[in-house]
Amino acid sequence: MSRFWSPIVHKLTPYVAGEQPKLSNLIKLNTNENPYPPSPKVLSSISSTAKLELYPDPNSDQLKDAIADYYQLERSTVFVGNGSDEVLAHIFQALLNHDDPLLFPDVSYSFYPAYCSLYDIRTQPIPLDDQLSIDPDDYRIANGGIIFPNPNAPTGKVLALESVREILNANPDSVVVIDEAYIDFGGETAISLVQDYDNLVVVQTLSKSRSLAGLRVGFAIAQAHLIEALERVKNSFNSYPIDRVAEAAACASFKDVEYFELTRNKIIASREQLSEQLTTLGFTVIPSKANFVFIRHNDFDAEQLAQSLRTESIIVRHFKKPRIEQFLRITIGTAEQCQKLIAALTVICQKE
Amino acid sequence: MSRFWSPIVHKLTPYVAGEQPKLSNLIKLNTNENPYPPSPKVLSSISSTAKLELYPDPNSDQLKDAIADYYQLERSTVFVGNGSDEVLAHIFQALLNHDDPLLFPDVSYSFYPAYCSLYDIRTQPIPLDDQLSIDPDDYRIANGGIIFPNPNAPTGKVLALESVREILNANPDSVVVIDEAYIDFGGETAISLVQDYDNLVVVQTLSKSRSLAGLRVGFAIAQAHLIEALERVKNSFNSYPIDRVAEAAACASFKDVEYFELTRNKIIASREQLSEQLTTLGFTVIPSKANFVFIRHNDFDAEQLAQSLRTESIIVRHFKKPRIEQFLRITIGTAEQCQKLIAALTVICQKE
Repeated sequence: MSRFWSPIVHKLTPYVAGEQPKLSNLIKLNTNENPYPPSPKVLSSISSTAKLELYPDPNSDQLKDAIADYYQLERSTVFVGNGSDEVLAHIFQALLNHDDPLLFPDVSYSFYPAYCSLYDIRTQPIPLDDQLSIDPDDYRIANGGIIFPNPNAPTGKVLALESVREILNANPDSVVVIDEAYIDFGGETAISLVQDYDNLVVVQTLSKSRSLAGLRVGFAIAQAHLIEALERVKNSFNSYPIDRVAEAAACASFKDVEYFELTRNKIIASREQLSEQLTTLGFTVIPSKANFVFIRHNDFDAEQLAQSLRTESIIVRHFKKPRIEQFLRITIGTAEQCQKLIAALTVICQKE
Repeated sequence: MSRFWSPIVHKLTPYVAGEQPKLSNLIKLNTNENPYPPSPKVLSSISSTAKLELYPDPNSDQLKDAIADYYQLERSTVFVGNGSDEVLAHIFQALLNHDDPLLFPDVSYSFYPAYCSLYDIRTQPIPLDDQLSIDPDDYRIANGGIIFPNPNAPTGKVLALESVREILNANPDSVVVIDEAYIDFGGETAISLVQDYDNLVVVQTLSKSRSLAGLRVGFAIAQAHLIEALERVKNSFNSYPIDRVAEAAACASFKDVEYFELTRNKIIASREQLSEQLTTLGFTVIPSKANFVFIRHNDFDAEQLAQSLRTESIIVRHFKKPRIEQFLRITIGTAEQCQKLIAALTVICQKE
C-alpha cells in the first residue's frame, strides 16, 4: 500500500496465473498449453521477420485479413490483441460496464472478477447447475452484459449452439460475450451467429489450438459497431499491441490449415483415450470438449493427488475454490505425457 | 456509436499514431524509429527462441534482471510492458488518478490526453515557455501527479537533471513521471534519482535507441511500492504482456552494450550534422537531444513543406496543433537518408 496509489488499486484482487516453473524435465499439465510446437511454417515466418526497428502496423491489417479469410468475414468484424486476455480486458471496459450487473457463471475463468475490479464493474455470478452446466434459463434476469467461456473452464463442458442462441434471444439489449479459448477442440463456434446478432462478441486465442501461447495473440469477432468500441479503447491504450513477429507468426498459423487439423485432432484423440483410462482408475471425468479434463476421485483428496503428482514431476492445476475444490484440471499432453500421467496415477491410487 | 458501448467509450478521443505507410522505398522519418537494425545478437536470439507453445514467464524476470543489471538496480524496482505505451497506460491508471488534476506540458506526447480520457483523469496542461522549454516553477501548483517527456517530444528539448530534481522537491506528495523515450540520445537519465525520491517513476522504451519498435518492449523504474501498484494493475489486465521472442530479444539487447553505443553515437553525430545543414538552409532548429529534430522555416509553410517532401518519397511529421503548426518533426535517419533529406529540402527551398 502507498499513498501514491490511485484509489482503484487498493481494491484490486489481481488474477493469479498458473505456475510457470523454471525447472526443466517437468510434465507441465497445469496451464492448458498445447504439447505440440507451432507449425514449421510459423517457425520459419519468425526467423524471416524483418525490420524490427520499425513499428508494426498499428491496425494489424494482415492478421485481421488472415482471420477474416479463414472465417469468411469482413475485416471490420475482427479485433486483435496481445493475447485474448488483453482482448477481454478491452471488452470489459468498452462493452460491459453498465448500470446493471454483469452476469457470468460462478465456476468459470477466474480472470473475469479481476477485470471487474479493475474497471469497477458490478457483477452477479450465476451458479452452474448440479451437473456443472450452464442453464440458459438462468440468464433471463436484468443485466448489463453476459460473459462465459464455451467450452467452460475449468469444467471443459460445452454449451450447444442452440443454447447460446437462446441466451442471445433472451438478451437483445445486452452484449453477450462467448469466450471460445478452447472451441477448436470439439465445440461449435458462435462466429456463424455474428451476422444475426448485433449484441454478440466471440473471443478466441492462438494460445491453445494454434500452439502460440508464447507469442500472445487473441482476437474478437463481432459486428462492426461493437468492434469500433474496442478499437477506440485500444487506441486510447496502446497503438501497437501486436508486434511484428507475432503478427507474421499468427498469419502463418491461419494459413497452415493442415497442421492445425492434424495437431488438434491428435489432442482430441488423446483426450478421449485419457478420459477412458481415468474412468477405469475410478475418476469421475466431466465430458470435455477442451484440451483439458476436469476430474475428481471419490477416494482421494484432490489437493493431495496434485501433491503426489508433483513429486513425480507432473504439475496439474488445483483450484481452492467452493464447489470445485475436489477437482483437478489436467491439460492434455502428448500421447507419451498422457501415458506417464496414467502410470503415475495408477501407482498413487494403489498406494494411498 | 452504439447503445451497447460502455459510457466511457462515447467520450474517448483516441491517439492517432504516425502513419505507417505500406509502400516500400519511402524514406520514413515520421515516427522516430531507429534507422539501424537491432544488434545481430538480438536477431540470433529471435531465431533461437524455443517453446512458443508455452506461455512466457508472466513476471518476465529474465528481462527485469537484464535491465536491473544494466542500471545496477534491484529487480523489485523494475516494471516491464508491451511497449512504453502500455507501461504508461498502467501508470496513468495505477498512480495518476487522484482528485487534483494531472499536470503535463501543453506541447508534449499527444497520447497523454488519450490516457486521461480512458481513465477519466482530470488534467491541467501547463504551457511551455516562449522558448518551448519546461519551466520547473510552473509545476508548483496543487496536482494529482505530473508527467512529461525528457527530452520532450516533439520539441527534442532536454530538461537538466537539476531541474527534474527541483520539480521532485516541489512535489513530495505527487507521483512525478519522467518519460525518457529519447534519453539515450544525449540526455541524462533520472534513474539515478529513484533511490532518493519515493514519488519518482522513470519510463523508457526499447523502440528508439535499441531499434526494437517492432517488438514492443518498454519499462518503468521506481521504488518498489510504486512498482507494486503497476503489477497489481497489470495482473488485473493481462498476465503475459511480454512474449517469449520479445523477452529474449530485449535481454540480448541489454547485453550487447557495444552495438548500442555504436548506433546511438552514429545517430547523435548525424543529428548534429543535420542540424547544422538545416540551419544553413534557413531553418530554425530547436536544440535536440533526441533522435529527431523539430524545425521551422520563416519563409515556408510547414504543412506545405511536408507535402513537398512527400512527393519526393520522404515522410516527416507535421502536427496541426496550436503553437507548433509551423514546425516539422523529422526523425534522424541513416547518414544517407539525412543527405537525401537535405538534398530534397535544398531543391524545395530554392523552388518555392
